Amino acid sequence: MSRPITIALDAMGGDRAPEVVVKGANVASQRHPDVRFVLCGHEAPLARLLKRFPKLATVSVVRHAEDIVGSDDKPSVALRQGRRSSMRVAIESVRDGEAHGIVSAGNTGALMAMAKAVLKTLPGIHRPAIASMLPTLKGEAVMLDLGANVECTADNLVQFALMGTLFSRTVVGVPQPTVGIVNVGIEEIKGNETVRNAAKQLQGVHGPIDFRGFVEGDGITAGAVDVVVTDGFTGNVALKTMEGTARLYSDFLRIAFKQTPGTRLGYLLARRAIRALRDRVNPSRYNGGMFLGLNGIAVKSHGGTDVRGFANAIGFAYDMAAQGFNDKLIAELNQLQAELAGETKAVAM
Amino acid sequence: MSRPITIALDAMGGDRAPEVVVKGANVASQRHPDVRFVLCGHEAPLARLLKRFPKLATVSVVRHAEDIVGSDDKPSVALRQGRRSSMRVAIESVRDGEAHGIVSAGNTGALMAMAKAVLKTLPGIHRPAIASMLPTLKGEAVMLDLGANVECTADNLVQFALMGTLFSRTVVGVPQPTVGIVNVGIEEIKGNETVRNAAKQLQGVHGPIDFRGFVEGDGITAGAVDVVVTDGFTGNVALKTMEGTARLYSDFLRIAFKQTPGTRLGYLLARRAIRALRDRVNPSRYNGGMFLGLNGIAVKSHGGTDVRGFANAIGFAYDMAAQGFNDKLIAELNQLQAELAGETKAVAM
Repeated sequence: MSRPITIALDAMGGDRAPEVVVKGANVASQRHPDVRFVLCGHEAPLARLLKRFPKLATVSVVRHAEDIVGSDDKPSVALRQGRRSSMRVAIESVRDGEAHGIVSAGNTGALMAMAKAVLKTLPGIHRPAIASMLPTLKGEAVMLDLGANVECTADNLVQFALMGTLFSRTVVGVPQPTVGIVNVGIEEIKGNETVRNAAKQLQGVHGPIDFRGFVEGDGITAGAVDVVVTDGFTGNVALKTMEGTARLYSDFLRIAFKQTPGTRLGYLLARRAIRALRDRVNPSRYNGGMFLGLNGIAVKSHGGTDVRGFANAIGFAYDMAAQGFNDKLIAELNQLQAELAGETKAVAM
Repeated sequence: MSRPITIALDAMGGDRAPEVVVKGANVASQRHPDVRFVLCGHEAPLARLLKRFPKLATVSVVRHAEDIVGSDDKPSVALRQGRRSSMRVAIESVRDGEAHGIVSAGNTGALMAMAKAVLKTLPGIHRPAIASMLPTLKGEAVMLDLGANVECTADNLVQFALMGTLFSRTVVGVPQPTVGIVNVGIEEIKGNETVRNAAKQLQGVHGPIDFRGFVEGDGITAGAVDVVVTDGFTGNVALKTMEGTARLYSDFLRIAFKQTPGTRLGYLLARRAIRALRDRVNPSRYNGGMFLGLNGIAVKSHGGTDVRGFANAIGFAYDMAAQGFNDKLIAELNQLQAELAGETKAVAM
């Protein structure tokens, strides 16, 4: 694409804002020479920070925003009272066509509530979903929904399957992503009515989605499929269980290494590899949570992220914008609906 | 207790039956001198195996059973066609008062279906649940339901909280176990109606249950509570995600250790500690799944378990029988219902 891609940044969101945001933007601008930024937040400290990164300053504008959404603010409160917040100003920059996407390391619930209210969902999309990349034995998978919708219908899951497929194909670069729905077993008769109905619909679809049936909890990390579809309740619990188990394993490993002089020496020799490992299995810290299905690109970076993590989140927003993710989603949604309607007709005949 | 505790064993269930079953029984009989066994399965091979363990033979009887429930058999098929299976014969031994409990490493779905059909649930218990011990940063927690009920009501979750509390107190030995319900956040407003209603009921209970509110996926392994309550869909996905993540971590660790001669040496020095770790974080392999709420004790051992794992599963059945778990459960259920009724009255006034 020849035109520059502009990303609005909630410069005040996250544990170490605005430093991490500005430094992350600086890293991202080196990776993507055609990126532009709208930095939303307190003008004076942002201007001061930008002075340290003169190249970044040439591709950035600062938009002053008085308020900051607190990390513990309820979404409903943030929505009502956060009209002058850095988060809101950044989202409005997308609504107004100034930026292609927004990245924030702030409060997830508030970001989703504001993004839904300001950007709205894409035509035909019933519910937006939060997607993230997860490490697997075979590489990486996309999983959604991770918490935007605690209750989902079969139709919601079918749309998530489409959104996840498109993300995997255009941003992750998997030519023909396989899709599975999370369930308590892989047999067709397993699970609740919602997952069984979603599976039944997807089995009739041939064009846009390569559906492979159900996947169990251990199948997610085994890399059974490229796109893992689930409701936001199950997805959120599974993601956080993954993070918690990784932490547990790290902790047990540290204890195991302390047992004998031999194991202690072993730890010293392998320390760096073990630290790198901790990052690798921590699904959310070094990636972003992508809000899919909104009329504008929105990426949530981890609140405790570092410069590299924030730059990665910007990278996802950049890629989705550069790929025209939302335009493609609308086109493929139409194709999916035509297929599903055809399927219904075929069954009715 | 002075009377011996008799455990019926499905001697043909599991990947390495009947060897692992008989050897596991042998280990358990050394741990618990007053245990007795009813070994159900093919008479000839069992008699041959018992000859190798003369002490075990003196505390065991063999009950011939012609058939074996296959590991892939559907529960409904096993229920209809498995009347002469080792699993069924072992369960009937409990129903007939010959044994206090049954342990099987066979097909979980078939075992639950048969145990429900033959033993029935305890009076006042709406649904049985599968519980298991999980490793946490602070020690261990009990989690239930792990897959017996894909859909649960708030009342089900409240009863699971009671069953889990009693298990933690009598078998695990936690004097006053704390209880949490799995949710997508810890705030009261989070989650679906079922978890919110269950939490509301449990907040009014003071005697038998020490309810601490909601727990997130990473709180489970962090050891936020002693008893983790959830529906069988979420619980099953969380448990298997935990297993999958532990496998992923092990695999990444192996790769990390291969990077340089230094890390390779580190691995050699720490190898044994790392292997022990793999067992420690694998929740189901070295424990059993306890079927709580049935009119008889039933414990599911992992299908791929080894001798130690099967002996552990027998240990859980033994402890529940020795503690009079089911009698206590009925008594505490009455206390809980009185409290809940009082609570309702208080609210109505």
